[in-house]
Amino acid sequence: MVDTAAKSSTENVTHANRTDYVAQTGPIDVDAPPAHVDVALLGRKLLGTWADIRLASRELAKNPDMQRIEGLPLEEHRARVFNQLKLLVEDGQVHRAFPRSVGGGEDAGGNIAGFEELVTADPSLQIKSGVQWGLFGAAVLHLGTEKHHTKFLPGIMSLEVPGAFAMTEIGHGSDVASIATTATYDPETQEFVINTPFRGAWKEFLGNAARDGIACTLFAQLITGGVNHGVHCFYVPIRDEATGEFLPGVGGEDDGLKGGLNGIDNGRLHFTDVRIPRDNLLNRYGDVAEDGTYTSPIASPGRRFFTMLGTLVQGRVSLDGASTLGAAMGLTIAITYGNQRRQFTAGSDTDEEVLLDYQRHQRRLIPRLATTYAQAFAHDKLLVKFDEVFSGKGDTDEDRQDLETLAAALKPLSTWHALDTLQEAREACGGAGFMASNRITGLRADLDIYVTFEGDNNVLLQLVAKRLLTDYSKKFAKADAGALARYVVSQAADRAYHGSGLRRLAQTVADFGSTARSVGQLRDPETQRELLTDRVETMIAEVATRLRNANKLSKQQAADLFNSQQNELIEAARAHGELLQWEAFTEALATVQDAGTKQVLTWLRDLFGLGLIEKHVAWHLIHGRLSQQRAQAVTAYIDRLVARLRPQAQDLVDAFGFEPEHLRATIATGIEAERQNEAREYYRALRASGNAPVDEKTLNKKK
Amino acid sequence: MVDTAAKSSTENVTHANRTDYVAQTGPIDVDAPPAHVDVALLGRKLLGTWADIRLASRELAKNPDMQRIEGLPLEEHRARVFNQLKLLVEDGQVHRAFPRSVGGGEDAGGNIAGFEELVTADPSLQIKSGVQWGLFGAAVLHLGTEKHHTKFLPGIMSLEVPGAFAMTEIGHGSDVASIATTATYDPETQEFVINTPFRGAWKEFLGNAARDGIACTLFAQLITGGVNHGVHCFYVPIRDEATGEFLPGVGGEDDGLKGGLNGIDNGRLHFTDVRIPRDNLLNRYGDVAEDGTYTSPIASPGRRFFTMLGTLVQGRVSLDGASTLGAAMGLTIAITYGNQRRQFTAGSDTDEEVLLDYQRHQRRLIPRLATTYAQAFAHDKLLVKFDEVFSGKGDTDEDRQDLETLAAALKPLSTWHALDTLQEAREACGGAGFMASNRITGLRADLDIYVTFEGDNNVLLQLVAKRLLTDYSKKFAKADAGALARYVVSQAADRAYHGSGLRRLAQTVADFGSTARSVGQLRDPETQRELLTDRVETMIAEVATRLRNANKLSKQQAADLFNSQQNELIEAARAHGELLQWEAFTEALATVQDAGTKQVLTWLRDLFGLGLIEKHVAWHLIHGRLSQQRAQAVTAYIDRLVARLRPQAQDLVDAFGFEPEHLRATIATGIEAERQNEAREYYRALRASGNAPVDEKTLNKKK
Repeated sequence: MVDTAAKSSTENVTHANRTDYVAQTGPIDVDAPPAHVDVALLGRKLLGTWADIRLASRELAKNPDMQRIEGLPLEEHRARVFNQLKLLVEDGQVHRAFPRSVGGGEDAGGNIAGFEELVTADPSLQIKSGVQWGLFGAAVLHLGTEKHHTKFLPGIMSLEVPGAFAMTEIGHGSDVASIATTATYDPETQEFVINTPFRGAWKEFLGNAARDGIACTLFAQLITGGVNHGVHCFYVPIRDEATGEFLPGVGGEDDGLKGGLNGIDNGRLHFTDVRIPRDNLLNRYGDVAEDGTYTSPIASPGRRFFTMLGTLVQGRVSLDGASTLGAAMGLTIAITYGNQRRQFTAGSDTDEEVLLDYQRHQRRLIPRLATTYAQAFAHDKLLVKFDEVFSGKGDTDEDRQDLETLAAALKPLSTWHALDTLQEAREACGGAGFMASNRITGLRADLDIYVTFEGDNNVLLQLVAKRLLTDYSKKFAKADAGALARYVVSQAADRAYHGSGLRRLAQTVADFGSTARSVGQLRDPETQRELLTDRVETMIAEVATRLRNANKLSKQQAADLFNSQQNELIEAARAHGELLQWEAFTEALATVQDAGTKQVLTWLRDLFGLGLIEKHVAWHLIHGRLSQQRAQAVTAYIDRLVARLRPQAQDLVDAFGFEPEHLRATIATGIEAERQNEAREYYRALRASGNAPVDEKTLNKKK
Repeated sequence: MVDTAAKSSTENVTHANRTDYVAQTGPIDVDAPPAHVDVALLGRKLLGTWADIRLASRELAKNPDMQRIEGLPLEEHRARVFNQLKLLVEDGQVHRAFPRSVGGGEDAGGNIAGFEELVTADPSLQIKSGVQWGLFGAAVLHLGTEKHHTKFLPGIMSLEVPGAFAMTEIGHGSDVASIATTATYDPETQEFVINTPFRGAWKEFLGNAARDGIACTLFAQLITGGVNHGVHCFYVPIRDEATGEFLPGVGGEDDGLKGGLNGIDNGRLHFTDVRIPRDNLLNRYGDVAEDGTYTSPIASPGRRFFTMLGTLVQGRVSLDGASTLGAAMGLTIAITYGNQRRQFTAGSDTDEEVLLDYQRHQRRLIPRLATTYAQAFAHDKLLVKFDEVFSGKGDTDEDRQDLETLAAALKPLSTWHALDTLQEAREACGGAGFMASNRITGLRADLDIYVTFEGDNNVLLQLVAKRLLTDYSKKFAKADAGALARYVVSQAADRAYHGSGLRRLAQTVADFGSTARSVGQLRDPETQRELLTDRVETMIAEVATRLRNANKLSKQQAADLFNSQQNELIEAARAHGELLQWEAFTEALATVQDAGTKQVLTWLRDLFGLGLIEKHVAWHLIHGRLSQQRAQAVTAYIDRLVARLRPQAQDLVDAFGFEPEHLRATIATGIEAERQNEAREYYRALRASGNAPVDEKTLNKKK
């Protein structure tokens, strides 16, 4: 946020004589040029590939009618958000993703970029839009064919037909393949008959289901001619457009109040002998002829299923971006406040310390700022990849798999990071952080569900790990048994299999182990890359080694063996995601020209990289990748980087570019600095008046 | 929660042939007796010293009128909680803490125990009670004298006089000594004149201030005869009892909606020339005579201030207990659900896995269960200490300081743990965890503020660290400079200063380093104690060494030097708190007679202890306390312990003794198991009918 009070406070800190940051950071960075961030330039960089679309969406978010009102009763909040969707339709941005044939813009990446920014207005608005156009609409778009686009998309795009995305069931969330709702083809009438066989098969947690939806894209087991062809998607009307009552055979319940996102009318649906025309099967990946014959362009039912689900990756992509924005908002509020708020005198007799001058406060906020930057850059790469696949610029099977793996690796990290950061920001603002008027608690409550919907984070990371394991096996597929055995032996001796780089590193430490030299090496991005990459590869290799005999075991034994490695695998996938974020940060850094900005961003990237190494330093120690001395140097250097970056903290959050209308947090408006100025002036006048009471302590000393 | 569905599910798991937990945990525990927890006995143990009072309070919490209704509008929630306070008065338990002279029970410990349990009814009720009787009432009790007790306590106890505890100001939270409100004595009228000099001195975040309070205990700088004697507490009426309007000179605002605890009417107050009788100074630790002469039984203003604040420690004590209950509730809900909920088939072709059979799920919940147990036992010790001090059984200065340090060490850990655990529980229940009807999100939102009120957690830990540093200096106070220098040298060589135990340990590893032997030693409680203790002592010693020349520096330089150690100091204090929890767990364990319960609790204590060591294993590696091999053994043994404890998880949460009326979470009622039974029966009947569709996959295989 660009705010005068905050600015001047930062400058006070930067120019304060008493805190010499250069001295604090020691000799290592002394020869670095004086670093000053070009906030505007950096801001543009953070906005990424679709900067203009993001800015337009932020302008829209400044409209008070688009914004969340804290504490609105459930039904009023729902009604408000539904009306906001209408404003979005008027704005036209909702058409961006859809085909030109129905008036859309066919701009897959720009569409997601624009929607993500709505999180600043109200996360309920962002997610409700996602339900209507990103899930319900996208299912018709990606799983349907021309006839469906022509027939259904116009009503969906205009919001004449609000709809639910009826995939999850009470009994099956992450395991979509096991849903129990059936769509049985009846050749007599050329209809599908939809049934919910038992309570656990009720469709559950569906946005638009409790109040607004008049149709849904329903996932069900497609049965024709006595054969179950697996999960397919169907377009199913659920409510009478005129009366709003459920259609015959359809029933449901309201999910009621949730932990957040209460502007969305989540609910449950169930179906009893609900008949829909044969044409309502969204038939891009599987079709049923009039006589009931099933055909599909994809022979393998497994691959067909994953192809269908893969088209819906955009939800994960957009959560990665929205979460990063949420973390950025929390940090902007907390750092702006932390740069103004004072508590306790330490070095001075009169002036209290600004919170952000406390080492602990810096340690709480600045590393999280580094992570948020890494995520912003990684997200833009993800979105570019998404755009390539969905625009057809690059949509081979491999591209699609890469996109899915990338989204599955990044979404868990950024959604968890948002919750962690918003909570730390809340705590860093103390009691003020708990007031709804300061925004943080509401954001956190809304973003809570991001970590388990559109793919539970742990389940997604396990998917990533399986992909890493597969890639690893491919690498050794052509190796003979002897090669693998030799590899296993070398692993046992705890040597990195991918090269000699790290061994050299360890030797260097032993030979010339001064802290300065250690830090010098740690600042080298190649060292950071090597350490981060090595950890992912070694973890995967270790698990692969432990699993190598799994195919000789019974199914149950193999499952137990795999389960015994589950935690490690998920940690390996997390390490992979962290590496991707680090790579993205480093790539972005390479494109920065301005010297000051580049210097500060380099510190921030180093803080991110070394923060990851510190977090996992036990692993690096146990595996002999870092000596004890160098491990200590990591922490010491992080302390220096944090102090180094402290004067830049306000610039770095200002570069996120949020305006007061986006933050809407009283404590980030400069009110705290105003109050302090008033207090300072009061005491100054009191002292000048000669009526100031004497302190008992002072009196005692004089005695 | 004792619940039949949950029970039978647990038994299914326990007796399942396919998962042989003994085999999974390897040879180490094979000779341990078959472990079975005596749930009733363990439950009694967890209830602690005031078990009967806790049970009575839980009975009260089962009254629906006492319970939170999710989603109640702000004003209705406030009104409801206020009425619940009246029910508490009728129940009589609110009198427990007060003097016999005014009809109280003088049972300090029992009073806190009873109040803590109200968190199961509604955290707003717990905290609003705390405001009325634990803060407003306790200030009159502990800071006032006989005349105040007689005059004010009856109305406070009966709720005829609801009141606010007006300490915190907008400008000063943690730094109470710097509050700016003044109470200036006017000998002419024998009154104190209360003034809020500027906006930052408004009293802020006060429960009972926005709606219900008609008086407050106000903290202000006491000024008489031109001397400021520091912060004192005054009894100040704020609203007209009849009209509910602010009295002349008093003003305020409503804090409005908060991130949680919305049953409490937090607000702000300000005062302009408000006059109160001289007698309204709560004068236990400082008095003003008619002529304005100030006297105090405590000469030092600093010690006087801390003595006054020290009497208010009960808030921190009760948050420690209530947070532990919050974590226990979250775990009971998530583990009960995780024992029923199934997702994905792994080892079997038909039966899906129960969530809690997944290693990752176990790793997410079971270590947190161990921590919750440790906290429950540590809390009972804290409460006993509190009772000793406040009953006068042991209230020397040292006792009071120990109590304050203990509370300051434990409250941060348990309040953070509650948030962390409730969040993990929420995520472990997936989308269901996000539904308000499953309780977890509401509890988490309410408990959020516990980490920053009644003492910000980071500030409290810094207090603890300062105490540890002081104790450390005392240890060396009599040592000559040479002794200290020799100590510093020995530190530099990285040897533990407190004995040879750990050096011996490290050597053993080098000499006979087999994993089995390593694990054997890690299971030894003395090893755990040694590692945990050594870490606290070494961290403090290291910081002390770095600070040793602080007194030769300028005030600003010394402050900067201290600040450079702040993060490390806070981590040391946390390590100290963890050690206290470990000690309490180990002491509690020693009193358990039943063999099965003892065995399971021993595993749980080991899991807690080794979990701490694993969390800080980098430190142990860097400081040469653990070899690389032994560090790996820690993680390997934790994996085994978690698997070992998995069959006992339901018993261990059942022992918390919550009934359905306390949990009020749909997913913890057995509904999930019912739905699965219905589904299983449906598929069984379908197969039996011969009408089950054939799976396309099966068909393809047959071809």
